[in-house]
Amino acid sequence: MKPELANVKALVFDTFGTVVDWRASVIAEGVAWGKAKDLNIDWAEFADRWRLGCKPAMDKIRKGEIPWTRLDDVHRMILEDLLKEFKIAGLTEEEEVSWTHVWRRLKPWPDSVEGLTRLKKKYVIAPLSNGNIALMTGLSKFGGLPWDAILGAELVQHYKPDREVYVSAYYYLDLKPEEVMMCAAHVSDLQAARRCGLRTGFIFRPHEFGSGPVGVPDTARPGDFDVVSESITDLAQQMGA
Amino acid sequence: MKPELANVKALVFDTFGTVVDWRASVIAEGVAWGKAKDLNIDWAEFADRWRLGCKPAMDKIRKGEIPWTRLDDVHRMILEDLLKEFKIAGLTEEEEVSWTHVWRRLKPWPDSVEGLTRLKKKYVIAPLSNGNIALMTGLSKFGGLPWDAILGAELVQHYKPDREVYVSAYYYLDLKPEEVMMCAAHVSDLQAARRCGLRTGFIFRPHEFGSGPVGVPDTARPGDFDVVSESITDLAQQMGA
Repeated sequence: MKPELANVKALVFDTFGTVVDWRASVIAEGVAWGKAKDLNIDWAEFADRWRLGCKPAMDKIRKGEIPWTRLDDVHRMILEDLLKEFKIAGLTEEEEVSWTHVWRRLKPWPDSVEGLTRLKKKYVIAPLSNGNIALMTGLSKFGGLPWDAILGAELVQHYKPDREVYVSAYYYLDLKPEEVMMCAAHVSDLQAARRCGLRTGFIFRPHEFGSGPVGVPDTARPGDFDVVSESITDLAQQMGA
Repeated sequence: MKPELANVKALVFDTFGTVVDWRASVIAEGVAWGKAKDLNIDWAEFADRWRLGCKPAMDKIRKGEIPWTRLDDVHRMILEDLLKEFKIAGLTEEEEVSWTHVWRRLKPWPDSVEGLTRLKKKYVIAPLSNGNIALMTGLSKFGGLPWDAILGAELVQHYKPDREVYVSAYYYLDLKPEEVMMCAAHVSDLQAARRCGLRTGFIFRPHEFGSGPVGVPDTARPGDFDVVSESITDLAQQMGA
């Protein structure tokens, strides 16, 4: 381990794309559900549109154009638009809630649980996601993610990349900024964390966007961040865990 | 399991006295530390006075006489008074911090980890304590408490028995009040939770106050609360976990 990382005590994680594979999970449920309902939908497009719809909505919340809204409720808002657009009608309230909560049932990447379990023995680990507490708790129950605590946007009613979220991580853990490492597959997330004094750990997730047209996975070269890794187990290895 | 408890989805726990044995733990560290420092102190009295000092301090915070202060910092304030009173001088800043954090190193009762581990398979489990997030995270790392999330006073900047704390439990978990059970060894905590619509689970902790003169353990009869139990494993049994 690099000597300057010896005082890191906690690792906080972006979750969607970094710890869990949102795209394949939403598509898989869509396909199964579409079959049961006899719907002919491009579920990859549906999943991508749903995910892409979150950022503009969160940006409006960040600018104060919309009052604070939990990510579960953002997911519901975008779902309602998509249902109209894809001409899917007649869902019961229960079905809409269940479909909204597909975001609580996302599969971890194959290395996530093993990597987090190793890291947990040496460090405090927590999500630092835009997902709200119920959503994050749901994900950890679903996928067996062994978090020590749930941190993130809802505790401070700010969405990343607002600095309040990163600052809250070391505040709530009662640590110095440089004792906390932000871990993410997204360069912009890590850059924002670094501006708040956090250490940074990049995790390469080449399959986050599948072969879809909506996103290109971020890459990093050695030295771009404190740790540049190819998986959470690789990150654990590099962090001596 | 009682049929009316079939829709309970989460159990939230008071921690000091209910999940961990604060008194024996603080005394044990005091005795070891006093021996190393050649101090002749009644550590049982020291521990009791420290614990008893918290309530009036939290009450002042509840009434707004003191601005919001985390429990770690309340512990530090009271410690400084006690050090003067017990004529313990010359501690370094590092020693005072470490001694303050004895409250992050409290032993779970013998049934706590097994009971929580069983409950976790069926329910969301979280502390709903007056302890701040870093303190609760420290306790769970120290004692192996398998929480799904850390809830409690710090998230809403209110101390129990303020209703904001109990309401936050079901708000953050996105549940109905009656889907959450407050579990505690203290009747007043359960009564306050019940007034907010939560289910209640009593856990008998006859040894919380040792044989000391400062507290009498609460008792409950069958029917006083939704569940009346003698340990967290007994609670798990009664909740079908």
